[in-house]
Amino acid sequence: MAVYTHLGAEEMAALIEGFDVGSLVSAKGIAEGVSNSNWLLETTGADGNGARFILTMYEFRIELGDLPYFLTLLDHLAAKGCPVPRTIHDRHGNLYTMRGDKALAMIEFLPGVSVSDPTAGQARAVGGELARLHLAAADFADARDNGMGVAEWQRLAAQCGPDGLASIDPALAVLVARELPRLAAAWPTDLPRSVIHADLFPDNVLMLGDTVTGLIDFYFACNDTTAYDMAVTHAAWCFDVRNGAFRPDLSVALIEGYEAVRPFSAAERAALPLLAQGASMRFAMTRAYDWLNTPADALVTKKDPMAFARRLEFYAANPEVFA
Amino acid sequence: MAVYTHLGAEEMAALIEGFDVGSLVSAKGIAEGVSNSNWLLETTGADGNGARFILTMYEFRIELGDLPYFLTLLDHLAAKGCPVPRTIHDRHGNLYTMRGDKALAMIEFLPGVSVSDPTAGQARAVGGELARLHLAAADFADARDNGMGVAEWQRLAAQCGPDGLASIDPALAVLVARELPRLAAAWPTDLPRSVIHADLFPDNVLMLGDTVTGLIDFYFACNDTTAYDMAVTHAAWCFDVRNGAFRPDLSVALIEGYEAVRPFSAAERAALPLLAQGASMRFAMTRAYDWLNTPADALVTKKDPMAFARRLEFYAANPEVFA
Repeated sequence: MAVYTHLGAEEMAALIEGFDVGSLVSAKGIAEGVSNSNWLLETTGADGNGARFILTMYEFRIELGDLPYFLTLLDHLAAKGCPVPRTIHDRHGNLYTMRGDKALAMIEFLPGVSVSDPTAGQARAVGGELARLHLAAADFADARDNGMGVAEWQRLAAQCGPDGLASIDPALAVLVARELPRLAAAWPTDLPRSVIHADLFPDNVLMLGDTVTGLIDFYFACNDTTAYDMAVTHAAWCFDVRNGAFRPDLSVALIEGYEAVRPFSAAERAALPLLAQGASMRFAMTRAYDWLNTPADALVTKKDPMAFARRLEFYAANPEVFA
Repeated sequence: MAVYTHLGAEEMAALIEGFDVGSLVSAKGIAEGVSNSNWLLETTGADGNGARFILTMYEFRIELGDLPYFLTLLDHLAAKGCPVPRTIHDRHGNLYTMRGDKALAMIEFLPGVSVSDPTAGQARAVGGELARLHLAAADFADARDNGMGVAEWQRLAAQCGPDGLASIDPALAVLVARELPRLAAAWPTDLPRSVIHADLFPDNVLMLGDTVTGLIDFYFACNDTTAYDMAVTHAAWCFDVRNGAFRPDLSVALIEGYEAVRPFSAAERAALPLLAQGASMRFAMTRAYDWLNTPADALVTKKDPMAFARRLEFYAANPEVFA
């Protein structure tokens, strides 16, 4: 949550000249993004009426070859009316530019705030937008594998090792040893697929009241089982921010909101309890890895893997949530 | 350079209700401020036409008793036409509110960017605004001692100790032993006084082209020798960003810009070489202290005290700069 690279005003202004957006009026480094630096820019606008943008410098972790997928997906979804930021192409039509060995891309600024304690009305709206995203991406030509799929959970679990997992919580090592092989063996491969966001936490949704004004941070987007995206979103939204308790009101609203746009097939519905256990395992494993590998001095809040270990157990014990 | 405190959207929206600024549209934590957290807020505005603000949470270092000085000074200067952000008072007229043991204040957002490689035209404009600030504050009723005066340089030097200073650079220990007693003995006390900004680095000036759109970050502002503010500003602006070399073009422009508004008296002019040595000592000492006391893991760029040690030597050898 920091700005890793200093971009001077003169360099920023020169960079902006490469786009048809007018001249630079303001630039503030914003405290978002763990593996990239972001600035909120204001310019005079192509039409002179002012415009705002988010400029992102990709610092770590990203495969440059994936950038066109993420950035053209935004254009595709925006053109279909999804509330996602358009990519601002430069004067040569490029999606991104290089500064040394780092890529820079500019996207629209969208209004809205990320809720931390959602209401049912907000969960319903998010369900609807998730379904519209799935439908809108149906004719998106590009494709990308899910780099955070079952094989990656297994790799992360192996990297942490039983002792590493047990050092976080003995119960985590037990859970992973028991559940990860089971999930991997049972993981469905024949359900409908589409582009999925794959990381639609409240942080990645901008809202004004009950209206979704922005779906953002598509850097885990990929082509995978469509219903798995609901499983991720469900695990991310439907547990109380104060005490972690399951929130049936949010669950019902999220699913109803989704199905009002794209009803699940019987096969999808039957698979959702397992998919939600998998989604919980995915976040438990990435959090466990980060827990063990984030330097104590890093200015990053470590997130507790056990929150998602408990959700996995909840989903295993309560398949009726998706009935 | 971080946001230390998480303020959820719901809490932010509730906070905004305390002000006559409309409702919350956007909130982005911005990567500015070492000892406070800042957010760039957008609201629907008191008139419904939209408005932007900077919300600051004071995390460390600040004396709560000093806040009214800083915040009413902004109002005073803005009312006189200085390009400083007005303080947004809450619906009860309060300058700031408390959240637990931390104070929160809201000020206007101002356009502009901070230059890192100023031109002579920009230095001239900054000189003029500094002089206007000094004149505009003449009838400001409140007063505050300079907490970063000679006594504080001595305290910081003692805290670092000769060995600590020598661990940064042997030349620094020699310089401080030789120059600090000399500066303290010769420090003028009979020159004209006023409110001074006391920290007007390029970072604390917003500009659009050659126009100053904002003087910001008044948290070192105090009542002290007026010409000392020029000494600080000179030391901060007139050395090349690439190689530290003195830039006579920027020096001439900064001083001419200032004197076009407020000419120096003969006594001020005669004192400026010494005042500039003192300003250099002030930043060398605070940087040395931070150098020795910033944890290696802090996400803060350590600033080299020797840059200002060299400026001190430059000013001692070149008093004609201010002739």
